Amino acid sequence: MKNYQAYLIDLDGTMYRGSERIEAASDFVKKLNEKKLPHLFVTNNSSRRPEQVAAKLTHMDIPAVKEQVYTTSMATAQYIKDQHPGADVYAIGEEGLLTALKEAGLNLVEDNADYVVIGIDRGINYEKLAAACLNVRNGAVFLSTNGDVAIPTERGMLPGNGSLTSVVTVSTGVEPVFIGKPEPIIMEQAMQTLGYDKNEVLMIGDNYNTDIKAGMNAGIDTLMVFTGVTSKEDLKSYNEQPTYTIDSLEEWMTRL
Amino acid sequence: MKNYQAYLIDLDGTMYRGSERIEAASDFVKKLNEKKLPHLFVTNNSSRRPEQVAAKLTHMDIPAVKEQVYTTSMATAQYIKDQHPGADVYAIGEEGLLTALKEAGLNLVEDNADYVVIGIDRGINYEKLAAACLNVRNGAVFLSTNGDVAIPTERGMLPGNGSLTSVVTVSTGVEPVFIGKPEPIIMEQAMQTLGYDKNEVLMIGDNYNTDIKAGMNAGIDTLMVFTGVTSKEDLKSYNEQPTYTIDSLEEWMTRL
Repeated sequence: MKNYQAYLIDLDGTMYRGSERIEAASDFVKKLNEKKLPHLFVTNNSSRRPEQVAAKLTHMDIPAVKEQVYTTSMATAQYIKDQHPGADVYAIGEEGLLTALKEAGLNLVEDNADYVVIGIDRGINYEKLAAACLNVRNGAVFLSTNGDVAIPTERGMLPGNGSLTSVVTVSTGVEPVFIGKPEPIIMEQAMQTLGYDKNEVLMIGDNYNTDIKAGMNAGIDTLMVFTGVTSKEDLKSYNEQPTYTIDSLEEWMTRL
Repeated sequence: MKNYQAYLIDLDGTMYRGSERIEAASDFVKKLNEKKLPHLFVTNNSSRRPEQVAAKLTHMDIPAVKEQVYTTSMATAQYIKDQHPGADVYAIGEEGLLTALKEAGLNLVEDNADYVVIGIDRGINYEKLAAACLNVRNGAVFLSTNGDVAIPTERGMLPGNGSLTSVVTVSTGVEPVFIGKPEPIIMEQAMQTLGYDKNEVLMIGDNYNTDIKAGMNAGIDTLMVFTGVTSKEDLKSYNEQPTYTIDSLEEWMTRL
């Protein structure tokens, strides 16, 4: 078997479930550090800043610094910056997205935007959706941080960013470019940030339709761990299979 | 040619454009009254109560009483009442919808709803969308007053109810039953309210995809008037044609 030189690691379902740590996660990440194996936590959650994500991990005794967190907000900001430095952006989203856009040197505007970006926004309202539609109809490039249709919460499955995005898609008839997993864009940005090539990297995640698909779409080997969304039973229904499957990250520690 | 005994009439694009009356509308409706021809104004606008719609028409010198207005909110309330009198309904919408549901003897609830109804709501927020999704996932029947994806305004095309509805459709994977034009449901309810059969009624409207399609879907003859959305040029691209077409309602007055 191959020796991987760097790791991309999903968070929810792989490192923790909601506010509860997945048991093996702490030892696994500590071992990555011992072995000096570079790794990046890659998340479709656009609402938090990387330092907030790192703090959550640290609080669970999973070592992490903000430089090891790559959010779909950061990937979206980088994507725009690469295409059009200093672009005018109309954004719907929470702190993590707005901060990432500003830190990438982009201008947040209301009208005449070059780009419209939508990320999850629990403060969504009609005026925000109206402004997004008007900017898209006016020719702005339409981006969405991620297509997740639902978010698991203690109350049940609540609307995810993919469903909020559909308001603009359905109203204007313009399909967005999605940045987050399972799209390859976030994976390519993450590899660039790590400084490793797709043949050197392994993507670890629990969700076939986002994590594993993202790896496949970017040409990266994948390690599926059955501690989250996708069960062994679910996995049988898919044609294309992950490179490896394990029940717990503990099983992979001998491979590091 | 046939003599129609009752008329179903669209509002925006047929009687007025925004706040401006379409010239022939006033004389046309006065002639309907002279000839004692029963008629109902049928609208996909769920936000206003029928008395508010009648007042707008009267203000433009187009005679109308509230009993002559049939909104998609009234059709939605009637549809639920027919299936399940006294049902518990979770509703997203404005005054016109909430009033229609209450007047039909339905209970507005937050949880454990039998039905979820969405109409245009300029006060939309994440919590309302979350409650709609939770109720639909919990088994509530999902209805939408109308599928219009955009609303023409002075600022441009803003999100219509069809696009707000898509948040719940996309997030839950459950398709709603749409009540308004071009669905036949609103037309059947309107004919029942008028007390006339589909062979006795003519549907008048300016929009091929809503008004004319609604007539066709309900098996009603249709009169298309080129004072609104669909142009003569547009109409050529459709296979199924309206029963009649005119440039102005004035042309039809000799037929009353």
